[in-house]
Amino acid sequence: MAFDAIETPFGKTDKIIGGSATYAAWSASHFTKPIHQISIIGGDFPEKEIKALKDRGVEFDGVEVLKDEKSFFWSGKYHEDMNTRDTLITDLNVLEKFDPQVPDSYQNAQYVMLGNLAPNVQLQVIEQLTAKPKMIILDTMNFWMDIAMDGLKDVLKKVDLLMVNDSEARQLSGEYSLVKAAEKIRKMGPEFLIIKKGEHGALLFHGDKIFSAPALPLADVFDPTGAGDTFAGGFIGHLAKTDDLSFDNMKQAVIVGSAMASFVVEKFGNERLTEINAHDINTRLKEFISLANFELDNI
Amino acid sequence: MAFDAIETPFGKTDKIIGGSATYAAWSASHFTKPIHQISIIGGDFPEKEIKALKDRGVEFDGVEVLKDEKSFFWSGKYHEDMNTRDTLITDLNVLEKFDPQVPDSYQNAQYVMLGNLAPNVQLQVIEQLTAKPKMIILDTMNFWMDIAMDGLKDVLKKVDLLMVNDSEARQLSGEYSLVKAAEKIRKMGPEFLIIKKGEHGALLFHGDKIFSAPALPLADVFDPTGAGDTFAGGFIGHLAKTDDLSFDNMKQAVIVGSAMASFVVEKFGNERLTEINAHDINTRLKEFISLANFELDNI
Repeated sequence: MAFDAIETPFGKTDKIIGGSATYAAWSASHFTKPIHQISIIGGDFPEKEIKALKDRGVEFDGVEVLKDEKSFFWSGKYHEDMNTRDTLITDLNVLEKFDPQVPDSYQNAQYVMLGNLAPNVQLQVIEQLTAKPKMIILDTMNFWMDIAMDGLKDVLKKVDLLMVNDSEARQLSGEYSLVKAAEKIRKMGPEFLIIKKGEHGALLFHGDKIFSAPALPLADVFDPTGAGDTFAGGFIGHLAKTDDLSFDNMKQAVIVGSAMASFVVEKFGNERLTEINAHDINTRLKEFISLANFELDNI
Repeated sequence: MAFDAIETPFGKTDKIIGGSATYAAWSASHFTKPIHQISIIGGDFPEKEIKALKDRGVEFDGVEVLKDEKSFFWSGKYHEDMNTRDTLITDLNVLEKFDPQVPDSYQNAQYVMLGNLAPNVQLQVIEQLTAKPKMIILDTMNFWMDIAMDGLKDVLKKVDLLMVNDSEARQLSGEYSLVKAAEKIRKMGPEFLIIKKGEHGALLFHGDKIFSAPALPLADVFDPTGAGDTFAGGFIGHLAKTDDLSFDNMKQAVIVGSAMASFVVEKFGNERLTEINAHDINTRLKEFISLANFELDNI
């Protein structure tokens, strides 16, 4: 949970609310509650934002507040193609002291999402869980592969699903073919793998099954910040709501995640996630059906 | 119709049979006949290859043979990622004299595919048609946008469907967003647009409808040469077979084209297209259903 300042070809923001856990929680809150948030913030994190999340069923017992310190801050500028960005500022602030504690009231959560952070911090959360959840999802990034590959490999052994983008899947596996990359990565631990491909959609791998989900083609991607976290929140929110780990339902969760991601990029930050309702989401989901489904009755 | 010599990370070939029209004809021949081929070859084009095509219903009345000259020859080397390649040799040979003539016996063809060539040559074929076909499909490439944009725009006004890759769609329209690119390109003439995205599949645009087809994720892409032409052949072959221009059937044609492309890359050149049968194709099409289709019954 953090602050971001974002510049895109469409405009720029002052400090706005950001952070993986914020995006994921807002997204998941459209499908399930309670959401047991674990994070660390400074005294500067607005009460109004905390209240808005609490009103949506997000619990704060696991969110440490360091009153006299500042929340994590990231500032970045997207290039014209919106696929690449430059980081302008990274102020770790409270994140340097992050020592996540799982409150007793959070134990027995069945669907656990570990946002993108240092692998040893992610591992610390897993090790505090008193019972094995039904699904632990891990997000990570190339940065941790560069500087903490051994730690990342330790975490991978303990999770059920890894979510990375295509270049990260290639880096982690050393394979260019995503099919071969998926095979190698799943041998590292996770039974399920999601490879996110931005505007090209996402691939879900499990056993010998592959599902290819499209991204919604958009006239304008206003701000891609948080799209991956929003995807993750929608995905795990749908799983928690339905409590069904069949491959058919995992496909639906991927589509739900993709739909949520298609909303969040329409405005700066998480604004769209706070505006939309169940009707908007269902309308968007129907667009995905006509976008991707086909019959082969003329073959 | 031509010769290619290809080098990929998997190996290299001597001169083998290549050319857009060869790939497209082999691919389409799995779905429809006769196929009215228009091309130019030299005396070096093997009788055996001509006979193999004739046996599959490909007619040669429109193929000019210059006995004492050489067929077009292209040689290229693919990079490790298989998405980029260097052209080593381009010998135009007979292609410099290509003056396509539409034989009387070809008139009234309802499904016309114009392979990637100089726009004025493509236009020459359209202008010889005595009646408007149901569907004229145009392939082109960035090269013609660089040196013959005006001619290309003239051809675009006279075709029903344009098939290009994503970077070509961006170049032609000046728009990065493929949705905006599609809108601009369709204002240039074609009612339908297919944007091919290689390993990321293809998008079909018509009116306000978009269909996103996946590519089959492959462990090895052995040789990508001809994949686009094979896609086009399968696409138009299915349309000619079914004679149905509904959007639902166009979606099926995109999947058929994608399936045929997924075969051709498995070996060098067009070899796989000469080996596979209807059973192989149907099995592959079923893989596309499980790859891309989903229900939303848990929402």
